[in-house]
Amino acid sequence: MPEAVSIDYRRVDEAALKRFVVAALVKVGIAPRDAAIVAEVLVAADLRGIESHGVARLVNFYVDRIRAGTLNPTPHVKVVRETETSILLDADNGLGHPAAKQAMEAIIAKAKVAGSAFATVRNSNHYGIAGYYAMLALEHDMIGISSTTSVRYAAPTFGKDVLLGTNPLAFAIPTAKEPPFVLDFATTTVPRGKIEVYERKGLPLKPGWAIAPDGLETDDAEIAMAPGGGLLPLGGFGTDSGGHKGYGLGLLVDILCGVLSGGAFGTDLPVQADGPQPGKVANFFAVFRIDGFRDPDAFKADMDAELRNFKDSQRAPGAERIYVAGEIEHERTLANRAAGVPIHAKVWASLEQLAGELGVAFELA
Amino acid sequence: MPEAVSIDYRRVDEAALKRFVVAALVKVGIAPRDAAIVAEVLVAADLRGIESHGVARLVNFYVDRIRAGTLNPTPHVKVVRETETSILLDADNGLGHPAAKQAMEAIIAKAKVAGSAFATVRNSNHYGIAGYYAMLALEHDMIGISSTTSVRYAAPTFGKDVLLGTNPLAFAIPTAKEPPFVLDFATTTVPRGKIEVYERKGLPLKPGWAIAPDGLETDDAEIAMAPGGGLLPLGGFGTDSGGHKGYGLGLLVDILCGVLSGGAFGTDLPVQADGPQPGKVANFFAVFRIDGFRDPDAFKADMDAELRNFKDSQRAPGAERIYVAGEIEHERTLANRAAGVPIHAKVWASLEQLAGELGVAFELA
Repeated sequence: MPEAVSIDYRRVDEAALKRFVVAALVKVGIAPRDAAIVAEVLVAADLRGIESHGVARLVNFYVDRIRAGTLNPTPHVKVVRETETSILLDADNGLGHPAAKQAMEAIIAKAKVAGSAFATVRNSNHYGIAGYYAMLALEHDMIGISSTTSVRYAAPTFGKDVLLGTNPLAFAIPTAKEPPFVLDFATTTVPRGKIEVYERKGLPLKPGWAIAPDGLETDDAEIAMAPGGGLLPLGGFGTDSGGHKGYGLGLLVDILCGVLSGGAFGTDLPVQADGPQPGKVANFFAVFRIDGFRDPDAFKADMDAELRNFKDSQRAPGAERIYVAGEIEHERTLANRAAGVPIHAKVWASLEQLAGELGVAFELA
Repeated sequence: MPEAVSIDYRRVDEAALKRFVVAALVKVGIAPRDAAIVAEVLVAADLRGIESHGVARLVNFYVDRIRAGTLNPTPHVKVVRETETSILLDADNGLGHPAAKQAMEAIIAKAKVAGSAFATVRNSNHYGIAGYYAMLALEHDMIGISSTTSVRYAAPTFGKDVLLGTNPLAFAIPTAKEPPFVLDFATTTVPRGKIEVYERKGLPLKPGWAIAPDGLETDDAEIAMAPGGGLLPLGGFGTDSGGHKGYGLGLLVDILCGVLSGGAFGTDLPVQADGPQPGKVANFFAVFRIDGFRDPDAFKADMDAELRNFKDSQRAPGAERIYVAGEIEHERTLANRAAGVPIHAKVWASLEQLAGELGVAFELA
């Protein structure tokens, strides 16, 4: 929350932070245009308060892989198949963000003519927050959908093998005066980063979060993070609280991204324990025009009414506020734009070290 | 399960059951063509083992509403807006099934030309199982999506007002030899029918299922079903186990169906306690062609490999089998086609009574 950032955080200028990310990426061989897209997506995550997907990942998710030679810094993104309403890109094992943005821009252009369009990307790497790409549709009065596979972390319902990533799904829908509806969620109950935080703090995990290597649920973060341990799908262990639905959504994402693109799926995807390697990530995107159904202004006015309906409804005992998807992230973005992007001291140190290693100026103030 | 149907069930001939549904609906004023579609969808639910959405609903969901004058038996379904990749229908407060099928058939035809298409339907009524419509895409080598609003049962995260239906989402994806992937799930943890079953049996509810009228979670089925009580979104109470994700999905459905169609949304939708009334149901459908990305035969072969990957993975202790979405329902359909459709004694009695009231032959053997 921007209002209550702890002393572990420093606030930095948004433009300066982006310049630093660009300079660092260019230094390891990324084209300036691609580096600018990565900086845009990473800083958007930090602005939205999703620090797990922000510049905290610059070193180990991106720069380390480029330096290790497992991520191609100079990819030739190839159009594999294209129709008036679809496009399939091969990202040539390059950074995920530029290929994902290219795919979304292509289908937005197609939908301007055809009304709707779909894209898949294969042979890519981690693309940051799923919601960023879905939100590109908003200004065009379109509804946007974005999804991606990831390193495998999660087991299927009734299974013990770690077969699925956190496989997020994001939907962005425009509004008039209210913040846009942006639903961006992992199809596991929690992301792996949350288990790591609980492990550091020595706290017991909540129900529905994780399994031990034996395939049974555990509340011990250390055991959940041991090789063979894993995340549970949204809905938790077994089927009593709907775990089969989260598992179904995770598998849906693996199919729409991995199988539909002709890329990696299922056990072809890496597990984290295997170390730096090509991400083999695949994405799925869709957009469609609101004016295929209604006048966009009338739709957006109704969206405002719809969202206020929920926000203004009666609260459960002890609850402070009822949110709609994307609202907190929108408010954080406005606050962080004004006060500066909050960067944790550890992340700050990692960026400062990277600056030194690469001989890049470290001027974030 | 067809292998172990209890003595409370009788097995009936599929064709005879459909003929009876058609005859009953025609008798209350439904056009034979529409009645045949309703029969097809209801019996498909019983074949798939989803009895809550099968012929058990013929009397109180459909015939009673027609007799009460709250559902229009002779609607003029109107095309409100149409483009090459979209269509919006107004169902004129008629039965939900014919309008939904018309919408799906329209966008399948559009996608054959354009590659993808979307539909919404407003001013409709309960359309049966969401998956039925998504599955219409399968034989065309398309991926199908189907969703609907319903009577309000569920509260948003941190809220106590019942604002959302069970709002199911269904996705159907073709395969080669494996049963098709058909993910069809309520965005609440459980449907209301499950609470009713637990209430009848006097069993405590499981975590994440329901709230009391005070807005706090309850394991008492009677309290959950009292006026003001309600269902919880997938992920359960609060945010600890991801309830905000299920809430977000439920609201997404309310938007894609209700707001996008210009139909009823949010508090415009009825609550069950209000008795028989126009359903004000809205639907959302989408289809897109697999050959926009890959050769469909290669895709379907990879789908088989993908699904077997999960089914053949290691089981958790005590688990008998790992399923993929739609697999159980496919197996039940094959078994019930061979052995006859299982009809519960209570449902049998309700149909027999209806036959008497309407003067329709009751020959299901």
